[in-house]
Amino acid sequence: MSVLVTGSIGIDTVTTPLGKSENCLGGSAVYFSMAASFFSPVRFVGVVGDDCPFDLTKVFAGRDIDLSGLEVRPGSKTFRWKGSYQGDMSQALTDALQLNVLAERPPIVPEHFRDSEYVFLANTHPTLQMQLLDQLKKPKFIVADTMNCWIDSQPDELKKLLQRINVLILNDGEAKMLTKCDNLALAAQELIKMGPKAVIIKKGSNGSITLDSDGHWFMLGAYPTVHLKDPTGAGDAFAGALMGYLASADRTDTKHLKTAIAYGTVTASIVIEGFSLSSIAAIGRSLIDKRLGELKEMTEF
Amino acid sequence: MSVLVTGSIGIDTVTTPLGKSENCLGGSAVYFSMAASFFSPVRFVGVVGDDCPFDLTKVFAGRDIDLSGLEVRPGSKTFRWKGSYQGDMSQALTDALQLNVLAERPPIVPEHFRDSEYVFLANTHPTLQMQLLDQLKKPKFIVADTMNCWIDSQPDELKKLLQRINVLILNDGEAKMLTKCDNLALAAQELIKMGPKAVIIKKGSNGSITLDSDGHWFMLGAYPTVHLKDPTGAGDAFAGALMGYLASADRTDTKHLKTAIAYGTVTASIVIEGFSLSSIAAIGRSLIDKRLGELKEMTEF
Repeated sequence: MSVLVTGSIGIDTVTTPLGKSENCLGGSAVYFSMAASFFSPVRFVGVVGDDCPFDLTKVFAGRDIDLSGLEVRPGSKTFRWKGSYQGDMSQALTDALQLNVLAERPPIVPEHFRDSEYVFLANTHPTLQMQLLDQLKKPKFIVADTMNCWIDSQPDELKKLLQRINVLILNDGEAKMLTKCDNLALAAQELIKMGPKAVIIKKGSNGSITLDSDGHWFMLGAYPTVHLKDPTGAGDAFAGALMGYLASADRTDTKHLKTAIAYGTVTASIVIEGFSLSSIAAIGRSLIDKRLGELKEMTEF
Repeated sequence: MSVLVTGSIGIDTVTTPLGKSENCLGGSAVYFSMAASFFSPVRFVGVVGDDCPFDLTKVFAGRDIDLSGLEVRPGSKTFRWKGSYQGDMSQALTDALQLNVLAERPPIVPEHFRDSEYVFLANTHPTLQMQLLDQLKKPKFIVADTMNCWIDSQPDELKKLLQRINVLILNDGEAKMLTKCDNLALAAQELIKMGPKAVIIKKGSNGSITLDSDGHWFMLGAYPTVHLKDPTGAGDAFAGALMGYLASADRTDTKHLKTAIAYGTVTASIVIEGFSLSSIAAIGRSLIDKRLGELKEMTEF
């Protein structure tokens, strides 16, 4: 099966304790697609302005990523993000943000994408996420991401979205914010009550914690990364590998979801070893599988 | 095999978002011994003043804990700690501290304890930890804990101690402080270079990460605790169950160390569900084993 992704394409400038990368390619849909493409065909939906300096057909050359849903909008400007990380790089600081084309109407889902069953809604205004969903005929497994600004400004719309998705992915700070719970285990239980069949809470270098509506927990540590350079895109690559694996297996039971989370974890560990897409673009599936085997050994007792 | 523990006995007053416990029994050696006693005989070495309101023979009644090493020192006062936790309770705040008898000479290790092979040195001045070690004839597996004040004030003595122990247990903040590394994976590698055969970094509700000198990593999530009441003693109970299990098996290879860490994890999860020793004192080994099985299922993929 293929995976449909809708999300951002960005021009990023990122500074970390280990260097700086100016005007590089970023955006949730880009990181997601790159990671998912190791596992399954990807259907890409996103929009850039006519100032976009990147040719995604070249960036994704040789990968099974269908760019029919990429709109280059004349007269609009591409989304830009300038951010930095300090210390242990666990928090991204936004130094400047230009929504540009992302503040305009969303892109259209192409007709031949509308039968997609595996769907990832990268973080954006929850109303937009629902509008994108409305365009699909028979979505079977819908995963959505969100972030602090939507939790803060659109809690009611977000709660409507949560009734329509299978899995919510968010980070620990967002989970606490949305549920007003300081205890993350309690927060996970509260999130399940809001509708999704499973919630995956990402904790950066502390891995992730997952709870499903049958009460199954899954805790997985991060792959130990001593060569951490730039955490940007880790969460989107995590989601990409996770969805790519599930779509390739066309199974979403607990066992497959656990393996999918492990694939997401190791794929994210590769992304953060280089600035922008440099490390993930340079590797093959074999490194991902090698790390999956290592992670299994590093976590079982 | 039995486990020898040297550490504190304290009169604690603890406040958390869920309540307050005044003048209750605490101290590293107390939590450690209670947890270890589910697995192996314990040899207890510690000192209190003649004001101590607790009768440890009653507290430990029915457990295989030899209190020959407990000194009640006339004219001295018992160690007191007043602390509080806020929010997610990940950080203990010390509101008041009276070292009292802990600032005097250490207790003597009784003659019939000196052949102990499994030894836990709870956190205290590293010079004292080494003096206690000097009294032992043939320690085989030495585990030590430390904390920020010794890292800060006694770094050279602490580094001498690290050359003499098998396993160092400390928390994530302390690991970063001692190595001056923000990346915890790197910090673990630096700690191994300082001498111990393995380092276990505790991360509270994020579980633990372990590295040994052969390069084996082990990441384990915490057992999800929705009924968290008081985190006091979690780290000492973790160490107690870990050492108790290893001593009972008389094996310290990677496989046994992993299982020991898992036993430590679930035993700590029980301690934090009640104030002081209330929850750990009320349960049997079967609950520990039940949670171990659950944790295995919650972490394997």
